[in-house]
Amino acid sequence: MTTTAFQDLYPDSSSHCYGCGRLNQAGLQIKSYWDGDESICIYQPKEYQTAIPGYVYGGLIASLIDCHSTGTAAAVAFKEAGAVSGTEGDFRFLTGSLHIDYLKPTPINGVLTVRAYASEVKGRKIVIKSTLYAGDIACANGEVVAVQVSKTFIDELVSQAHILD
Amino acid sequence: MTTTAFQDLYPDSSSHCYGCGRLNQAGLQIKSYWDGDESICIYQPKEYQTAIPGYVYGGLIASLIDCHSTGTAAAVAFKEAGAVSGTEGDFRFLTGSLHIDYLKPTPINGVLTVRAYASEVKGRKIVIKSTLYAGDIACANGEVVAVQVSKTFIDELVSQAHILD
Repeated sequence: MTTTAFQDLYPDSSSHCYGCGRLNQAGLQIKSYWDGDESICIYQPKEYQTAIPGYVYGGLIASLIDCHSTGTAAAVAFKEAGAVSGTEGDFRFLTGSLHIDYLKPTPINGVLTVRAYASEVKGRKIVIKSTLYAGDIACANGEVVAVQVSKTFIDELVSQAHILD
Repeated sequence: MTTTAFQDLYPDSSSHCYGCGRLNQAGLQIKSYWDGDESICIYQPKEYQTAIPGYVYGGLIASLIDCHSTGTAAAVAFKEAGAVSGTEGDFRFLTGSLHIDYLKPTPINGVLTVRAYASEVKGRKIVIKSTLYAGDIACANGEVVAVQVSKTFIDELVSQAHILD
């Protein structure tokens, strides 16, 4: 498993996400790494992130799969471009679509692991498939279509927003 | 628009959800109502629930669509059963699958509205389609397959969990 999270290589301007931004102190601080050919995200749910007592609520599962998948897409693009590991890259992905099949109720009392891989790389679109595990039990499958956007696109969006960071 | 939220009619044992449980003080407290034949959820995002500065993170959108859709499924089942409005019913739905198409970046500086309806009611499964708006702008489309479960099923799950409420 690699030691620097994908999200810790995002430039500051892409590091405010509630799910995975290192600059969002109120956020979930989701972190993703390579583990061989797969990417991996490990997360300890908090007691209040519950659906029914003892089980994780589905929105947290959606957030983990979403941020881990866009992070994986960025890492895949980074790798395919032959960029040097450890340097900041301009590899920004937004979520085009998110699909989750909830297979089993997900226990809240242990760490959750999401494992993901790119099933398709086609121009600006990367499809990321994933499975979320509680221990060895597969609790949800995810599929995210991540779409690469330019720094200019992000900068223009942010400049159009009325609330600026 | 009706005045009592669907979620405020859930029995206590189903009111701990981080997304929509009235007993989860740390949670989002998502509320759903009837507005004619559609259901409606209105939510003011918080400044820290950001993706990039000025825009809502996708996990919040997933949470709003998820909880509003399972709430709508419960309300549809309640109505179809001819149950009396204002009484607690045993209409509990879990999310079988969640699909979201993100159409546009969603501004964070105003209220978000989710409108939903049942596109299919088939035995224990209800399919809920929805659109999330920022002002008049449709920013995301959702589809949730909600599955009805019994009180016994929920009680057994909770009793099997190691963390009990």
